[in-house]
Amino acid sequence: MPKIAVILGSDSDLPVLEKGTKVLDTFSLEYELRILSAHRTPAAVTEYVSELEGRGFAAVIAGAGKAAHLPGVVAAHTVLPVIGLPIRASLDGLDALLSIVQMPGGIPVATVGINASDNAVLLAIAILALQDEDIRQKLHDFRKDMTETVLEKDRKVREG
Amino acid sequence: MPKIAVILGSDSDLPVLEKGTKVLDTFSLEYELRILSAHRTPAAVTEYVSELEGRGFAAVIAGAGKAAHLPGVVAAHTVLPVIGLPIRASLDGLDALLSIVQMPGGIPVATVGINASDNAVLLAIAILALQDEDIRQKLHDFRKDMTETVLEKDRKVREG
Amino acid sequence: MPKIAVILGSDSDLPVLEKGTKVLDTFSLEYELRILSAHRTPAAVTEYVSELEGRGFAAVIAGAGKAAHLPGVVAAHTVLPVIGLPIRASLDGLDALLSIVQMPGGIPVATVGINASDNAVLLAIAILALQDEDIRQKLHDFRKDMTETVLEKDRKVREG
Amino acid sequence: MPKIAVILGSDSDLPVLEKGTKVLDTFSLEYELRILSAHRTPAAVTEYVSELEGRGFAAVIAGAGKAAHLPGVVAAHTVLPVIGLPIRASLDGLDALLSIVQMPGGIPVATVGINASDNAVLLAIAILALQDEDIRQKLHDFRKDMTETVLEKDRKVREG
Amino acid sequence: MPKIAVILGSDSDLPVLEKGTKVLDTFSLEYELRILSAHRTPAAVTEYVSELEGRGFAAVIAGAGKAAHLPGVVAAHTVLPVIGLPIRASLDGLDALLSIVQMPGGIPVATVGINASDNAVLLAIAILALQDEDIRQKLHDFRKDMTETVLEKDRKVREG
Amino acid sequence: MPKIAVILGSDSDLPVLEKGTKVLDTFSLEYELRILSAHRTPAAVTEYVSELEGRGFAAVIAGAGKAAHLPGVVAAHTVLPVIGLPIRASLDGLDALLSIVQMPGGIPVATVGINASDNAVLLAIAILALQDEDIRQKLHDFRKDMTETVLEKDRKVREG
Amino acid sequence: MPKIAVILGSDSDLPVLEKGTKVLDTFSLEYELRILSAHRTPAAVTEYVSELEGRGFAAVIAGAGKAAHLPGVVAAHTVLPVIGLPIRASLDGLDALLSIVQMPGGIPVATVGINASDNAVLLAIAILALQDEDIRQKLHDFRKDMTETVLEKDRKVREG
Amino acid sequence: MPKIAVILGSDSDLPVLEKGTKVLDTFSLEYELRILSAHRTPAAVTEYVSELEGRGFAAVIAGAGKAAHLPGVVAAHTVLPVIGLPIRASLDGLDALLSIVQMPGGIPVATVGINASDNAVLLAIAILALQDEDIRQKLHDFRKDMTETVLEKDRKVREG
Repeated sequence: MPKIAVILGSDSDLPVLEKGTKVLDTFSLEYELRILSAHRTPAAVTEYVSELEGRGFAAVIAGAGKAAHLPGVVAAHTVLPVIGLPIRASLDGLDALLSIVQMPGGIPVATVGINASDNAVLLAIAILALQDEDIRQKLHDFRKDMTETVLEKDRKVREG
Repeated sequence: MPKIAVILGSDSDLPVLEKGTKVLDTFSLEYELRILSAHRTPAAVTEYVSELEGRGFAAVIAGAGKAAHLPGVVAAHTVLPVIGLPIRASLDGLDALLSIVQMPGGIPVATVGINASDNAVLLAIAILALQDEDIRQKLHDFRKDMTETVLEKDRKVREG
Repeated sequence: MPKIAVILGSDSDLPVLEKGTKVLDTFSLEYELRILSAHRTPAAVTEYVSELEGRGFAAVIAGAGKAAHLPGVVAAHTVLPVIGLPIRASLDGLDALLSIVQMPGGIPVATVGINASDNAVLLAIAILALQDEDIRQKLHDFRKDMTETVLEKDRKVREG
Repeated sequence: MPKIAVILGSDSDLPVLEKGTKVLDTFSLEYELRILSAHRTPAAVTEYVSELEGRGFAAVIAGAGKAAHLPGVVAAHTVLPVIGLPIRASLDGLDALLSIVQMPGGIPVATVGINASDNAVLLAIAILALQDEDIRQKLHDFRKDMTETVLEKDRKVREG
Repeated sequence: MPKIAVILGSDSDLPVLEKGTKVLDTFSLEYELRILSAHRTPAAVTEYVSELEGRGFAAVIAGAGKAAHLPGVVAAHTVLPVIGLPIRASLDGLDALLSIVQMPGGIPVATVGINASDNAVLLAIAILALQDEDIRQKLHDFRKDMTETVLEKDRKVREG
Repeated sequence: MPKIAVILGSDSDLPVLEKGTKVLDTFSLEYELRILSAHRTPAAVTEYVSELEGRGFAAVIAGAGKAAHLPGVVAAHTVLPVIGLPIRASLDGLDALLSIVQMPGGIPVATVGINASDNAVLLAIAILALQDEDIRQKLHDFRKDMTETVLEKDRKVREG
Repeated sequence: MPKIAVILGSDSDLPVLEKGTKVLDTFSLEYELRILSAHRTPAAVTEYVSELEGRGFAAVIAGAGKAAHLPGVVAAHTVLPVIGLPIRASLDGLDALLSIVQMPGGIPVATVGINASDNAVLLAIAILALQDEDIRQKLHDFRKDMTETVLEKDRKVREG
Repeated sequence: MPKIAVILGSDSDLPVLEKGTKVLDTFSLEYELRILSAHRTPAAVTEYVSELEGRGFAAVIAGAGKAAHLPGVVAAHTVLPVIGLPIRASLDGLDALLSIVQMPGGIPVATVGINASDNAVLLAIAILALQDEDIRQKLHDFRKDMTETVLEKDRKVREG
């Protein structure tokens, strides 16, 4: 049963999610994916997000571009940790970043880098890992694999 | 009966409204002022904004700072023209400006300059003037007064 | 009879208008399109814009790039609501955005997002809708269609 | 026993923490506060952070200004969720924000707004709340209080 | 008889002109100062600027803040060299700078630094100097004085 | 005999000059073109620029990218009007623009828009026109042609 | 025996190094190249960098993109001069530049331009030249060659 | 005998140097201080800088604000390592930073943070330390003192 919900403001943002999906596959985790817009489907966002806590979700990833209100609107309707994913659609993604990270006091959004869906997912996994020893172990393994991959590349470069 | 609704995300933004209030006084117009937050009182925003059209309003001014979602959230709940007022609270107001003006396709927000509550009100008045000959005349007078004020200052400067 | 005037600073900006034209087609509305430059044809701008109110127009959309003065110059010559469309031609459109939105007190320009001609048109339509029940109904329908389109995409994504 | 660790890069950043401390008081929660610099005391950071997981912490808040490396360096040494707090010390805090949020793939930092220590703490609390029914209830109460506070201000403004 | 015209968009910008006035005094030159706004008094700008060439002026300095259209509008009405002075009123003056310097092809504005009225005047003087041997000599002297002033400060610092 | 000198910091910048060259052709004017770098050939810049006034030049255009010091270095060695042309080589040209326009008091550089070699040349021509009735007439004609070109495009668009 | 160490945060950054490698070839110098990440292999960075001084190195070049912590982390572990190379990976490289150059007091990083690996290497060579007369002579020759290359291009352009 | 030369573009920049002077005192080192402007005293800069290598200097610190050309101009006249110090005078120092760090290929400037004269001096000291065992030891001690200072503050904060 998925514990991570992912909401994108538009299906045109799906390619940005690929790096994140790959991470989830590595952890054999699933997520519930929805396409919902803070501005075009506000009622559906409210309804869907309000039920996430009761349905046992542990984290919500919300990604959007431009004046990216989706993560903040999601955060307004749940006390679950909300992870904001700024998507590059204009101004190099700086507008989306500022629209997500500069939330007013009281309603935080845990913002990751522009287009960094892998880090959005890993942040959700780090939260899940607090309650799930198996995921925590996998997260340690993931880190070790990353380290090993860099060291392997380092070896190759050193050997010319 | 007021035709202009003004929503601020926080009562700490009230001083920014002063220039706008002065303009409304000049036009002998009233507005309905509400303090409602897109993130702290989303249900109240939805409820209030959804009724504005039925209550005969012609324009909504929404002002907020930082990740300023209020104008966009207001626009998602009404087909009335929504005027977005970016308020300087951090990053010189650039975050609020981008969070308001860079709306996704389909839900426009008519954005004015940073802290420019006078222009937000004048834009609302320009919209009202389309249906009200008296306001239109006053708007022409207001412009003439502004012109005359500048020319008067010009005369003073020329005369040293 | 068109109620919306559209002025572009250069015919090289015409492709940016396509999204807006599509919206107008959806509403079966017409607009009067002019290519006039604030700097190369200032007299023609003054003459054209000064007559718009008398000719019964309800809104003017003005689009330009770089040091985009056209919307402000248009606003200086009419009390009609002027909608400013920043066009991306350099610096990711940030120069055009700031040149349009940061108008001095007294002469507002209702600014939409960079290259967002669809939102410029929708803002004009929202203004027209205040006086025209038919357009208002179409605007509600347009919103509902947008909502339905997102929900349809959401269904497809959920069904994998 | 505290579950939240807070690391600041410099004791000159302590005033920024005040809003966050107030939130913790509201929740009757404690945190373990350390002054450790990614550049001046790298060994101490490594040692302290590496032990946090074993000591039962659930989240680490790391705040720094300028080229703010502390949150990223902390995240490199623990799989616990790391919350990055950009502190305004130059360039309006934009340098700190980008230095924290734009982490490379694999090591996320959950970034909050510039100087937003209240939101950093609330994000940590939202993570704690996943495992602690009492905190979760308090978080719901906190939200309700915030809502009520805004509505109370709204009432005052409406009553003039 | 003055050869330099100076137009400011607002009398609140007069203090910015002080450094420039001091330079003119050094050269025993006069200028004709006007307060005229591109948006509030467009007709007066057009009329005044159109006559400058016929009246024997050699350069026009135009200063404005925010969405600073004045220099561009001035340039649209004269073939005289127009010197644009961006005035800091918001966003650290970056909006005024971009609104002035990023002129479309065909109508240049010679832009100087933000609030740099001294350089605006010196640029006008450099243009005058091309036709006036006396001014040219004074400009060489001015440069020598500047050099000497720096070298004098250098001597003081070296002597501790 | 050319009255306009053009110095580029690198021959890789030559394509940026094309728009400017076309303008000069229109005016049947010539320029003296040099490739000289403020950093790689400082002595040659000093020598060349120091002689320009004596050789009868009326304006110098200097173009460079990145940390564009060339225009300022040129201005330090002549009292002739120096026109700075920021060339886009990184950061969308913003680094070049700021490096050129933000000159310290005393040594102005007349800055035009990023990559706007046409405007750099037209500014030089506006300066030449002050002393040359023939060029002044051609400048008026050039403006009229530009106006006519826009009006012609406007006619085409209106006729659909 | 190489005196220059080069550390890149990722092997995907290797193409950026090409300009620098070419410079080293010109000087017949070698460097020790490592791929080590501040976040993925912090222990390896600490170990490797801590030994550089003892192994006789004179300078370390560290290059990274986005939230580029590598140069600062390297500088925290050695008193050798550390040269920071910001690599363009997002936001035009501005995030990497600020993450590298805005180091807190006490631990400097000698930052060069975005993607400017040639200048990073030349800076290291300038440091080596202080102790090595042969390299110093080659550096003078390199400068002379650069000067000659520009003058040669200048001659070609002058001859048309 | 001093090995470090410091050049400031203006004596108004002297207060920025205080942090750096304090560092030099800690190391019992002297520096040769000059006030020389790239634009107002170019000949003096050329003359002074050209002689530094022959006089046995090991590093030059050059500080300037706005369009800060001084460090680049210094670097053009010596093969010694040149350390660029951007000074905040406008635009939060971003103009000075970009004008210094974005040097063209071939002539590097080792740039430190905005107003970071302490780091400029420490970088010069790191270069001196390569040839001077005493300074190197002091640099290690300086680092240890910094570490101890942070740990002491950490202890105080932990003890409340």
